[in-house]
Amino acid sequence: MINWKNFDSLASYQEIKDVDRVNLVEVMTGENGAERVKNYSVPMAAGLAYNYAAKQVDEKVLAVLEKLAKEAQLTEKYKALYNGEVINTGEKRLVLHQLTRGQLGDTVTADGVDKREFYVEQQEKVAEFARKVHAGEITNAAGEKFTTVVQIGIGGSDLGPRAMYLALENWAKKNDRFKMEAKFISNVDPDDAAAVLNSIDVAHSIFVLVSKSGTTLETLTNESFVKDALKNAGLDASKHMIAVTSETSPLAKSEDYLAAFFMDDYIGGRFSSTSAVGGAVLSLAFGPEVFAQFMEGAAEEDKLSMNEDLLKNPEMLDALIGVYERNVLGYPATAILPYSQALSRFPAHLQQLDMESNGKSVNRFGEPVDYKTGPVIFGEPGTNGQHSFYQLLHQGTDIVPLQFVGFKSSQIGTDVVIQDSTSQQKLCANVVAQIVAFACGKADENRNKNFEGGRPSSIIIGEQLNPKALGALLAHFENKVMFQGFVWNVNSFDQEGVQLGKVLAKRVLAHETDGALKEYSDLLNI
Amino acid sequence: MINWKNFDSLASYQEIKDVDRVNLVEVMTGENGAERVKNYSVPMAAGLAYNYAAKQVDEKVLAVLEKLAKEAQLTEKYKALYNGEVINTGEKRLVLHQLTRGQLGDTVTADGVDKREFYVEQQEKVAEFARKVHAGEITNAAGEKFTTVVQIGIGGSDLGPRAMYLALENWAKKNDRFKMEAKFISNVDPDDAAAVLNSIDVAHSIFVLVSKSGTTLETLTNESFVKDALKNAGLDASKHMIAVTSETSPLAKSEDYLAAFFMDDYIGGRFSSTSAVGGAVLSLAFGPEVFAQFMEGAAEEDKLSMNEDLLKNPEMLDALIGVYERNVLGYPATAILPYSQALSRFPAHLQQLDMESNGKSVNRFGEPVDYKTGPVIFGEPGTNGQHSFYQLLHQGTDIVPLQFVGFKSSQIGTDVVIQDSTSQQKLCANVVAQIVAFACGKADENRNKNFEGGRPSSIIIGEQLNPKALGALLAHFENKVMFQGFVWNVNSFDQEGVQLGKVLAKRVLAHETDGALKEYSDLLNI
Repeated sequence: MINWKNFDSLASYQEIKDVDRVNLVEVMTGENGAERVKNYSVPMAAGLAYNYAAKQVDEKVLAVLEKLAKEAQLTEKYKALYNGEVINTGEKRLVLHQLTRGQLGDTVTADGVDKREFYVEQQEKVAEFARKVHAGEITNAAGEKFTTVVQIGIGGSDLGPRAMYLALENWAKKNDRFKMEAKFISNVDPDDAAAVLNSIDVAHSIFVLVSKSGTTLETLTNESFVKDALKNAGLDASKHMIAVTSETSPLAKSEDYLAAFFMDDYIGGRFSSTSAVGGAVLSLAFGPEVFAQFMEGAAEEDKLSMNEDLLKNPEMLDALIGVYERNVLGYPATAILPYSQALSRFPAHLQQLDMESNGKSVNRFGEPVDYKTGPVIFGEPGTNGQHSFYQLLHQGTDIVPLQFVGFKSSQIGTDVVIQDSTSQQKLCANVVAQIVAFACGKADENRNKNFEGGRPSSIIIGEQLNPKALGALLAHFENKVMFQGFVWNVNSFDQEGVQLGKVLAKRVLAHETDGALKEYSDLLNI
Repeated sequence: MINWKNFDSLASYQEIKDVDRVNLVEVMTGENGAERVKNYSVPMAAGLAYNYAAKQVDEKVLAVLEKLAKEAQLTEKYKALYNGEVINTGEKRLVLHQLTRGQLGDTVTADGVDKREFYVEQQEKVAEFARKVHAGEITNAAGEKFTTVVQIGIGGSDLGPRAMYLALENWAKKNDRFKMEAKFISNVDPDDAAAVLNSIDVAHSIFVLVSKSGTTLETLTNESFVKDALKNAGLDASKHMIAVTSETSPLAKSEDYLAAFFMDDYIGGRFSSTSAVGGAVLSLAFGPEVFAQFMEGAAEEDKLSMNEDLLKNPEMLDALIGVYERNVLGYPATAILPYSQALSRFPAHLQQLDMESNGKSVNRFGEPVDYKTGPVIFGEPGTNGQHSFYQLLHQGTDIVPLQFVGFKSSQIGTDVVIQDSTSQQKLCANVVAQIVAFACGKADENRNKNFEGGRPSSIIIGEQLNPKALGALLAHFENKVMFQGFVWNVNSFDQEGVQLGKVLAKRVLAHETDGALKEYSDLLNI
């Protein structure tokens, strides 16, 4: 029997507030610090490990977090979710993104079908389509191969797939898995579509229109933009476009597309990278086998998230430490800092994933909560960030918890030795140095050069960023966000906060405005 | 006589804490809201305007902010800065980035030269070099024209110039000002340099090595990376490289470069877009005339920042409202939301500009301060952000002040009419709708669909994002950050917080580690 209770109504809420604070400088200095680095580590899928030695936790804090995990019934709630309960209460929907990559529990039936079979079937259809494109069996009207795939989508139909594409582009080129270049059109700013269209050869491009509802304003507008460009080039648009949508959408059975692949209402946009939303563009770019490896990494991580033992469940542990930092230590933001240029847009994806899921002020029953929920999420790759905003992270007046990611090997493998070390070694040395600098600080009589330390971080370490590792990394953060939503008792799977802006924008375009709305419209010549 | 006093020691500090709070929902609703939109606007350079109608201020708050401006001697401090005082006390340096684009006050002499003359001379040298490259007078060894320019730099040598390049790339293509494509190598991750090198034709590429000191590890490493690639292609590296550095750096008089252009210690990296750091790559990409227009916009905005009347000084006003939000209203972060895809990396630049300048816990004399300084800065272009993190901005438990930017016209001009409006109109309608949605909210009995409003924003509105408008926009934020640093009494022009990480990274690479540092190094195979 699951109880959906507010965080502050749990007995462990008070306990977690009262537990002694950890002095990070003390515990991370000397041999004790070395012991923590060895012990405070949880294996993840695909050879990754989540190391939380530099977090403000110790055995006492962890014991209370473990109590919290049990009292908040995190494992049971995850189980209910993957067994097909209506976890998205606001929209009365199941939440099935984990099912796209593997069967975790019972058979889930909805809309009269076995949903796992449905997702697998869509994946197979995508794979078959991609293979035919690569083999030159599906071509443009002139019988020539497509060389570029362009995703048209926004939000979850853009950020996740784009981040995943960039994460694997160089790996694929290096490993002979690169099939087609991918581009992305998202913004309703006409310069976005125009610039992408100017940069490609439309005659050899295939466009993936992604909209679950088939009604997203930006995406439909950009579709028209693309169709105009195809028409102007004397091409038949319907021979250059596929759709990824829900079966009930107007796009589903249109003659306007070469093919349509389906997702459904049980997969939120920000969780859709492992559905056909990510599947189509990634399978076209890298081949279905690469996409399958990516799915495998995610599926393995999903299984680790089932572990009832907090210290063997990297997602639950990461989630609870984050809750502790937000609600007890009072830190308002979290930075995502991958030491990997390939993960340049991964923080932007996690920004949506986290902030759209848990940026809520009411619980799942629509009642206001009296505690902080999701933090601000931001980040850039290291070492770039070191030369940018790390100043504030080290010496600013707010403490910002950090999530580092690092890999032992680069993707391309081309490297150079300067001052007795490779670039890859320098990259790794920098992330190591930062963790310790943030945690331990360094006293200096010149207060301007003084580092107080006590700034917590975790790091996920892997061998190399490959498709499987990427899948595990993605699922880690998806499941972390899910567990945090369970603790905060919010519905992490709707996004009512985006609606009002849409309604008002329509009024502006219809010139049905008064007051400030009208004045601003005049200022912008609408 | 200037007094450098801590913010909380000023009489107006208490006044600003005590002034009645503005209820944004109330004041922005109905005709009063319309009046505010009309009146709460300050003209900027290049036809831009800063509109703060949707900020939590009214006549009373503004009156106290005006007192604060006077008591904190903001105008006098700016004057001292542009007249050549040693404002960067930590490093004992002048602060002269405004001087790169115009003479605001007295002649500034340093190192025995008139610094304005020095900067103009460097600009002219850059312009002449760029013209020769474009005219085919400076070519590769085979006598062929260069077609690509690659900037090698990190932090301020990367983020600003890259953001400016992306901001003007499509404008230049549309207006026949596009000369060469620019690429950027920054990260020490070897995959960054390798991927860029794989994407270009090195035989027709000219590389701009940017390092003030000539010792930046990442940049020197990437230089070697590039030199290897040139050598492997059978090319003479010295015929493909120029340097932007200080006159005293080891790069200044090296035979390794076709030419060297100079900046100096009085220009911090994050303020260097209008020095040769931005000048070389932007002049090569778009021609010196475009760079001159960009400088002109910045120079005009710098002049507006001199205005003693707070309500006619967009930078001072923006700065003080930000201080009010940070120190009185207690908001921990600020989002930068340009409704312009061309400004996709502008928020990343402002993230460095702001967080590296004012992310400090000690005042300019090295004494700890008892108030919050610089906030976390993040952002993405609209409308993309609407489908990502805006959920938290609308309904999250923290209020995040917003800085919108919007333009009436697109850059490329290709557009499409869907449902009776162009994409550009939809873009503008969305930013207008968001401002009002954030400010006014909308009551709903279903609390999940309820918008409390009261979330403050400002907007900078322009005709079109062109070089002059971009210069004004850049100077606006540079000067805003400067004024905030004056109020907080911090030194906005050093960055001691980045040093400790560098020291520890060297120790890691030299294997001179123990404790946690050694354990982490082992985990990453260093």
